[in-house]
Amino acid sequence: MSAAAATWIAADWGTTHLRVWAMSSSGSVLAAATSDDGMGSLTRDGYAAALDRLTAGWPRVPVIACGMVGSRQGWAEAAYATVPCRPLADNLTPAGDRTHIIPGLKQTDPADVMRGEETQIAGFLSLNPGWDGVICLPGTHTKWVHVSADEVVSFQTVMTGDLFAAITGHTVLRHSTGAGWDDAGFLQGIDDAISRPERLAARLFSLRAEGLLNALPDAVARARLSGLLIGAELAATKPYWLGQQIAVIGAGTLALLYVTALGAQSAPATQVNADRATLAGLTAAWRRWKDKT
Amino acid sequence: MSAAAATWIAADWGTTHLRVWAMSSSGSVLAAATSDDGMGSLTRDGYAAALDRLTAGWPRVPVIACGMVGSRQGWAEAAYATVPCRPLADNLTPAGDRTHIIPGLKQTDPADVMRGEETQIAGFLSLNPGWDGVICLPGTHTKWVHVSADEVVSFQTVMTGDLFAAITGHTVLRHSTGAGWDDAGFLQGIDDAISRPERLAARLFSLRAEGLLNALPDAVARARLSGLLIGAELAATKPYWLGQQIAVIGAGTLALLYVTALGAQSAPATQVNADRATLAGLTAAWRRWKDKT
Repeated sequence: MSAAAATWIAADWGTTHLRVWAMSSSGSVLAAATSDDGMGSLTRDGYAAALDRLTAGWPRVPVIACGMVGSRQGWAEAAYATVPCRPLADNLTPAGDRTHIIPGLKQTDPADVMRGEETQIAGFLSLNPGWDGVICLPGTHTKWVHVSADEVVSFQTVMTGDLFAAITGHTVLRHSTGAGWDDAGFLQGIDDAISRPERLAARLFSLRAEGLLNALPDAVARARLSGLLIGAELAATKPYWLGQQIAVIGAGTLALLYVTALGAQSAPATQVNADRATLAGLTAAWRRWKDKT
Repeated sequence: MSAAAATWIAADWGTTHLRVWAMSSSGSVLAAATSDDGMGSLTRDGYAAALDRLTAGWPRVPVIACGMVGSRQGWAEAAYATVPCRPLADNLTPAGDRTHIIPGLKQTDPADVMRGEETQIAGFLSLNPGWDGVICLPGTHTKWVHVSADEVVSFQTVMTGDLFAAITGHTVLRHSTGAGWDDAGFLQGIDDAISRPERLAARLFSLRAEGLLNALPDAVARARLSGLLIGAELAATKPYWLGQQIAVIGAGTLALLYVTALGAQSAPATQVNADRATLAGLTAAWRRWKDKT
């Protein structure tokens, strides 16, 4: 089958990228495409053209979209639903002449927000009906989400990826954490941070000093820094994951780091394919939208 | 008196600036000058000319220098002295035809280094003979230094200033921490970080979320972030300052933040003028150098 048979289009529209899939009525992927037309590089009147460009040649069918496209700075603001609630809100927000945006979720106290992850959570739950536990979604801003009875009960965002990039790119540690990786260094960082979280601030400059005085390799310093920051994250989110069933939704090495770090704390976690969860969530949203119209 | 009467020149030569003072034999300042010719912008063959440019018209007298000018990437490497030791090493490292560089200090375990602060410590001790306690030197990389019997016993560097700049400049918090200040927000950050240091990683993104959902003002978010980071530093350095006599050497608002934060932990600290300490340390080094030659 080709994209010509598509009855709807699934769109994951984040800050840096737009990803689209031509979908059949049964939820099969007929074609896929990606561009750099993320929210960060578009003005409000550029979204329709960006979508048409990337789906040129595909049928002009309804589009179900999730992600930062629905933020205040996006195409059309899709007002947050408030937890506790189901991950997919009942109403989608229209944008342009054929696009429908899934709202993000917010939490009042402590204040927190997500956009895009709610769709992956909904997809995961549609693939695992009745699942209860904690979902970790690693990324620039990692989300920890407590799910029970098909609802998002509460969640917590930790900006570990954002911090790692800022520290390795814009502090003195940029001279000491250039490239490479070392598994033992990562595990040591995790252990240091979890066993003595109050010492974290004192451990960072040590990576630089050990490079100067003891020729600590960049690869070890980089992995240890990653371990320290993810370990600090695990220390902060312990009330979420301790004693819970855990699913880590994410692609590739970053998600694997979280699975490894949790495993080192005797908290086994299952890794779940992120694209599969995203598509399942967009499909669930499309089915509900279609049933209402 | 004018610079024409100078018998030596004091130089504080750091990463970003060169500061020089024309000095009399009795240790009085006759003239002063500053330029942007820091280590970071000079190649090895540019130091002599930078010094001559800034001291043009002054007598061509000996120069006593401290700071990054003595690093491996500086004018001439002044090998670290190893603690425990007195802050001023016996031998200065010559550079060019009239400059003598004060070596920095290193600590083997845990690995740590300083360059420039050892001179301020020596100056403080020359102004306060027999002083025992902990000296805090706030900066991009803040130093905590345990001093006893005129020796540096141990020290710990915490890169709080570097982190604050990277987070406010290069993470999502740059949108929420633009400008301004709020004393209550700073004190709340200190308290949050010290009372629950293991929660630090979870508190950062909250500043963004509270901005989005509760219109938290930038000034409050900025001050609270500063409080969280300095609070995390105090939690990590508690073995240094708890129950000790504390001197904070530094100019202006940054040093005052540390004095305020320590005071909130019932740890009263005395603020000491940084320039005065630097000049007293360079003067002590000059006297010893002169006595030997």
